[in-house]
Amino acid sequence: MDKDQAYAELIQRTKEHALLGSCASVLGWDERTYMPHEGSTHRSEQMGLLARLSHEMLTQPRIGELLAEVQDDPQVKLKDSNHAANVREIKRAYERAVKLPKELVEELARVTTRAQQAWQEARQANDFQAFLPWLEKIVHLKRQESQAIGFQATPYDALLDEYEPGATTDEISRVFAALRADLAPLIAEIAASGRKPKRDILEREYPVDRQEVFGKEAAAAIGFNFQAGRLDVTTHPFCSGVGPGDVRITTRYNPRHFNESIFGILHEAGHAIYEQALPAEHFGVPVGSACSLGIHESQSRMWENQVGRGRPFWEHFLPKAKQAFPSALQDVALDDWYFAVNDVQPSFVRVEADEATYNLHIILRFELEQALISGDLLPQDAPAAWNEKFQQSFQLTPPNDKLGCLQDIHWSMGGIGYFPTYTLGNLYAAQFMDQARQDLGDLDGDFRRGEFGRLKNWLNEKVHRPGQRWRAGELCQRVTGKPLSHQPLLRYLRGKYAPLYGI
Amino acid sequence: MDKDQAYAELIQRTKEHALLGSCASVLGWDERTYMPHEGSTHRSEQMGLLARLSHEMLTQPRIGELLAEVQDDPQVKLKDSNHAANVREIKRAYERAVKLPKELVEELARVTTRAQQAWQEARQANDFQAFLPWLEKIVHLKRQESQAIGFQATPYDALLDEYEPGATTDEISRVFAALRADLAPLIAEIAASGRKPKRDILEREYPVDRQEVFGKEAAAAIGFNFQAGRLDVTTHPFCSGVGPGDVRITTRYNPRHFNESIFGILHEAGHAIYEQALPAEHFGVPVGSACSLGIHESQSRMWENQVGRGRPFWEHFLPKAKQAFPSALQDVALDDWYFAVNDVQPSFVRVEADEATYNLHIILRFELEQALISGDLLPQDAPAAWNEKFQQSFQLTPPNDKLGCLQDIHWSMGGIGYFPTYTLGNLYAAQFMDQARQDLGDLDGDFRRGEFGRLKNWLNEKVHRPGQRWRAGELCQRVTGKPLSHQPLLRYLRGKYAPLYGI
Repeated sequence: MDKDQAYAELIQRTKEHALLGSCASVLGWDERTYMPHEGSTHRSEQMGLLARLSHEMLTQPRIGELLAEVQDDPQVKLKDSNHAANVREIKRAYERAVKLPKELVEELARVTTRAQQAWQEARQANDFQAFLPWLEKIVHLKRQESQAIGFQATPYDALLDEYEPGATTDEISRVFAALRADLAPLIAEIAASGRKPKRDILEREYPVDRQEVFGKEAAAAIGFNFQAGRLDVTTHPFCSGVGPGDVRITTRYNPRHFNESIFGILHEAGHAIYEQALPAEHFGVPVGSACSLGIHESQSRMWENQVGRGRPFWEHFLPKAKQAFPSALQDVALDDWYFAVNDVQPSFVRVEADEATYNLHIILRFELEQALISGDLLPQDAPAAWNEKFQQSFQLTPPNDKLGCLQDIHWSMGGIGYFPTYTLGNLYAAQFMDQARQDLGDLDGDFRRGEFGRLKNWLNEKVHRPGQRWRAGELCQRVTGKPLSHQPLLRYLRGKYAPLYGI
Repeated sequence: MDKDQAYAELIQRTKEHALLGSCASVLGWDERTYMPHEGSTHRSEQMGLLARLSHEMLTQPRIGELLAEVQDDPQVKLKDSNHAANVREIKRAYERAVKLPKELVEELARVTTRAQQAWQEARQANDFQAFLPWLEKIVHLKRQESQAIGFQATPYDALLDEYEPGATTDEISRVFAALRADLAPLIAEIAASGRKPKRDILEREYPVDRQEVFGKEAAAAIGFNFQAGRLDVTTHPFCSGVGPGDVRITTRYNPRHFNESIFGILHEAGHAIYEQALPAEHFGVPVGSACSLGIHESQSRMWENQVGRGRPFWEHFLPKAKQAFPSALQDVALDDWYFAVNDVQPSFVRVEADEATYNLHIILRFELEQALISGDLLPQDAPAAWNEKFQQSFQLTPPNDKLGCLQDIHWSMGGIGYFPTYTLGNLYAAQFMDQARQDLGDLDGDFRRGEFGRLKNWLNEKVHRPGQRWRAGELCQRVTGKPLSHQPLLRYLRGKYAPLYGI
């Protein structure tokens, strides 16, 4: 067979697999937004069929033949070419998929479906023992998974690689350790400052319909294209990139809490702006797909935190918010508002954490997951280990497992290896922002005028459009000239909090 | 192979094909309701893939082997059994599908996608010549289709059979001829009566949000289950049965026209009540699927016309409508309202036609389609033939093709053979209603009290739950004890219009 033909067929089959996956994305979005209550049983059958067909497409032996055929194609050997990146990442996905025994894949699907239900009930009832058998099964299966995939240094590497291709436990551990070493004193200084923002201004009357209008305006301002996307309401907000021209985000509104929806919308819009910038002509193949979960999260954190929790952003948007919510905001000064949305406060629940303490929540989970997968920690000992580590990091002990090791859905979904990507996102966001400020000059001036186009275009060009041409680490090196470091995030946090807390 | 095993595998493969089709239903619904504007190109690629996979599933040679295997299974030979009906109809669908050359299927898909676009533009511009090449292509392909499928009496039979399995052109022609012979004098008497309702009462201020509340209340009252369904807004209303627990209808609201949305909702709810009653355990196989388009349409017409345009219905609902729309309806008497929603008036456009003249629109199309497929009428002569027949039926000539042969989307979609099912629906609805009144006694008393459960339960049992156990003609015979006849519809129409028009 002609090598060009083989490459073309490989691309066509890969696109088809992605196209089927994007059908499942529509069904998944529908399930969480508009599906009638009684449709859930049928929906799970539809999703099961699509998952099976998708797995069959991904692991068809023809893909292996085509990969062998194209491997010494000169275009594929050309460094930094589309061909090279596509073949590298198709090969990675194919090899991961065929290494996993079909029985293990199906067992994981079955167990995690039921485990999510069990977790929900166990959390509700604050009953870790009810969840323990499921956690044991999942840890057991994920250990089998890591053995099947294989790893160089530690079994956790094999799981991490699913979400952050090419990253290693060792490398992440080093950056996280440095981050914690500097973050802990910063958080302690903040606590010792005795200063507190007027948090109550966030908890006034914010009518839902006006939150929606305001949120849409803000999302559009930072660059979310509503002609190629939507904003809907769900219990758990998410972003779903269906495909070119169709990227959807969701939020939830609390009529007595302003920042839940607005920062949620900015966060999801950050993910969506990334998806909307992926090159449509490469839909479904690696160079048209997002780089990694860490890089994806860097884009949501960039717009939510680096931009959306900044003073310049609110110099522009607070007057607009006052028009939308006159009774809640008429007496609120910019400084008070800015301080309120940047309150730092150790707390038990990760999803409610501020920008600084958030990362300690992640590091705790990252360490426990490694111990669970290596076998150093038994699932039955997870609550004690959690609480002990929590005390060390936060000088607080969770009053119960609901506010401790039962709080997150991830383990019940089999998502061990996922958590570190959240802090990687914070780190990449800070490092990219440093570089953007160097390249573009006075970005704060833009934000004060409600202009976000220069930053968005920079991200489009540097971070979004390359897709998976480079892995996350190399992308970071290329965009910022440096490997990933904890320093930009630390500098950014200290720079923000020092004046607020007088430290 | 064991015959039970063969049957089980046949059923499982048939269900899987339907399950994949139901994924496409969700995408189709989404496309018309919430899909972002720029998502349409990607959506057509998704739909193309699902159509191809679905066709591959339907025509896999394994189905042919399994059908051969089970054909002399005693359970399959048992008359009126689930096994017999399932195998009969799976065989029919399989044989239809494998008779069609793949190239013809793909050519039809390609041509009709582009023809719909061309039709839309041609209708807009009132330019039949622009549509003519597409109509020629489609008629040519549909003639090829009928040759490939095969037929006993006339090529149109092969097309009709897609929508109304087992029905023949000859049989339908006889019933339609009898209907026209009696309908024409009725319509003439109505015209000669000189009476006209006060139509303006339908064209007052009807705020859209209250129409929605009122429409939902009415749909729920007649038996649409909103826990297992939804009502949304689209330009062209439809009902989509995704699967058990998930049946969705749509409507459009006109703030200055009351009856468009309310009768549209009752119509689609009629379809949906049928879908919601199909036995969930048989999802995807013939005994769990709707019988035919004619029977489906009988259910929408039943609730829209037989019930929804009846005086008893409005005895219950007009007081409620007055509460919802006080300024529009405070001075409106029941008799005036009842007359207004039953105005008979020859008109050019089928979708705006009343219950009586509607059927003449259908008979005209039925006759033209037969002539196009037999070759007696060339597509280029369609406008002249249309106008001539229109003059004969309505004593009116369409002023242009936009109000004539360009008005309907069906031909551009390749849906030749579809139109007769609309009048079959009217005929079946009247015949079923006659029987329901015989079986259940005073149904009008129920309707006056806003009670529709006895009729719905009767339809569930007699018409809905059998699925495709019997073909439409036999179902009619079993439910009403008689073959399909034009007399119940005629009697119903004369019974309604005689007092209104004093004829």
